[in-house]
Amino acid sequence: MTTSDRERQVLNRIERTRRRRPKVREERITLAHGAGGKATQTLVEAVFLEAFRNPVLEQLDDSAVLEIGPSRLALTTDSFVVTPLFFPGGDIGHLAINGTVNDLAVSGARPLYLTAGFIIEEGFPVADLIRIATSMREAADAADVHVVTGDTKVVQRGKGDGCYVTTAGVGVIEHDRRLGPSEVRPGDAVIVSGPIGDHGITIMLARGDLGIESDLVSDTASLHELAAALLDAAPGVRMMRDATRGGVATVLNEVARAAEVAVVVEEDAIPVRPEVRGAAELLGIDPLYVACEGRFVAVVDGAESDRAVEALRRHPLGARAAVIGRVGEAPAGLVLLKTAFGGTRICDVLVGDPLPRIC
Amino acid sequence: MTTSDRERQVLNRIERTRRRRPKVREERITLAHGAGGKATQTLVEAVFLEAFRNPVLEQLDDSAVLEIGPSRLALTTDSFVVTPLFFPGGDIGHLAINGTVNDLAVSGARPLYLTAGFIIEEGFPVADLIRIATSMREAADAADVHVVTGDTKVVQRGKGDGCYVTTAGVGVIEHDRRLGPSEVRPGDAVIVSGPIGDHGITIMLARGDLGIESDLVSDTASLHELAAALLDAAPGVRMMRDATRGGVATVLNEVARAAEVAVVVEEDAIPVRPEVRGAAELLGIDPLYVACEGRFVAVVDGAESDRAVEALRRHPLGARAAVIGRVGEAPAGLVLLKTAFGGTRICDVLVGDPLPRIC
Repeated sequence: MTTSDRERQVLNRIERTRRRRPKVREERITLAHGAGGKATQTLVEAVFLEAFRNPVLEQLDDSAVLEIGPSRLALTTDSFVVTPLFFPGGDIGHLAINGTVNDLAVSGARPLYLTAGFIIEEGFPVADLIRIATSMREAADAADVHVVTGDTKVVQRGKGDGCYVTTAGVGVIEHDRRLGPSEVRPGDAVIVSGPIGDHGITIMLARGDLGIESDLVSDTASLHELAAALLDAAPGVRMMRDATRGGVATVLNEVARAAEVAVVVEEDAIPVRPEVRGAAELLGIDPLYVACEGRFVAVVDGAESDRAVEALRRHPLGARAAVIGRVGEAPAGLVLLKTAFGGTRICDVLVGDPLPRIC
Repeated sequence: MTTSDRERQVLNRIERTRRRRPKVREERITLAHGAGGKATQTLVEAVFLEAFRNPVLEQLDDSAVLEIGPSRLALTTDSFVVTPLFFPGGDIGHLAINGTVNDLAVSGARPLYLTAGFIIEEGFPVADLIRIATSMREAADAADVHVVTGDTKVVQRGKGDGCYVTTAGVGVIEHDRRLGPSEVRPGDAVIVSGPIGDHGITIMLARGDLGIESDLVSDTASLHELAAALLDAAPGVRMMRDATRGGVATVLNEVARAAEVAVVVEEDAIPVRPEVRGAAELLGIDPLYVACEGRFVAVVDGAESDRAVEALRRHPLGARAAVIGRVGEAPAGLVLLKTAFGGTRICDVLVGDPLPRIC
């Protein structure tokens, strides 16, 4: 079977999936349903999209864009269940602020106000809660947003895991540009804003499962300035998306499917720290699938790729930004990875959950 | 010691509390920290208000009122951890939509858009998740709001309790009126929109802890129409607040403290179903402290109380609305309950958590 036969097969499969109504095959929720890959996608489409169906939700973007009076607002939410709660480079509080700020920022909005809901397990140390709240405040200050309302619930011992945080955020969109994966077209360039996988691997190492010591720290950071810098520098920005659960590979697959294009990535061009590459190898997972919490994928007009990368590199969080690939016409709907050895393989969305509770 | 001596003592205590910085005395979180009473208040003030301090959050209203461009918006969030997930008259999905809609409605906003974050325990039946999502859709339709974005996380077995839902909501405020407990003044009338305590007692009965069978159902409902009807009918509405955790007593105490007034309630005037009264007696708790999920407390200009109650009674959800008390000048900061036998007692905020995980 030639490569193009195989590609046609895969394409047919995708088309079939599109036509039929998605259905969760499992009777019970598994960790894979929370991993951000294929199972999450099916669950979201079959259960939540099916129940709540409306034109805004159908976009399945990380932020909903709303017209309220004369204002265009972005609204987003994320729940955080990371374990351990405190890890090198950050904690659940940082993640909860930065994650929601980033969802707003990559939708092209200026993040303004956040809500915070806490589900705390009975017996959780008050000192740890203060530490989390303090670090949320630091992250909010850094992102120039305000936590304006919240809620606190307590569950019995054994019915939680210390502390879960859910943030929602509102931002304002102050330009007329349309951003989103469906804006992507052949000839565009694919950019990542920095080395990938630091966050996910840091969490795995912090759990001690691998028995490795390392200086690696989470990349958790607010991307609002970096996103604004890119929008300023390159009028041809098609989309930005922070590469959290499911990693860069998942974002690229969303792009390929939404825009019905091929995304061709040069493996050699992807910035990955050696510690991340090493630990990912031990885990048997490609760094492309490992969550970041302070990196985004951007697709820009191919003619603007140099300007875009330069603009990103001027910001400390984008110092290692790089073009990692190009958008082509065929095979539509697929992400292809050109390996260092000259081969090409299909880079599908994540199946299963090799790294549970990473954010 | 005379009553007024005692009142003076209590007042002095409140004043001392105000002056010193609140501090959580416990080293670890207890269920009382989630009960909506005194411990929750201290936790919120000492940890979250202290960390996030800003003028909007300092109001400690259920919704934050934000000026974004020319629009006045309300933003709110609530986490739901009720057990059991399904109960007579509703389920966690109904609560999650209605709770957030109601927080917006009682702040005087027209609810528009909601977010939904799910924290699901591994092994949770997919059919139950579909049931929850479907009931959220029904409640959203009834409240004329849309769930426009969401998030799904899965935690390992034993790290959750089936399914937790956190909703956030945005509404638009289309009038210039100022509402809030600090707007209340002596001479105002205190109204409840219907019989109190149905939700909390329904949950307790559904757990089977009391071994009582009953036809009682939760009062969970969207109050957006009722709130709008009251605002239309009575220009002198000072504040509305849905009486959830901590019940009507907690709302009245917030009013008394925020406005520095006395709230004097006639016990006989409070609508309470006999089943609720009976079960509350068995539990050793006053119905005034039991959560409702479809009732609000409103304070209106005393001269408009008849008109206000009439307007509420025209709506099915307000059929048993009643004036339950009056606002006086002294003793400022206190809620006094005039009992059926002619006595008067102080009705303080809830201490401890007699009914955990009610919402």
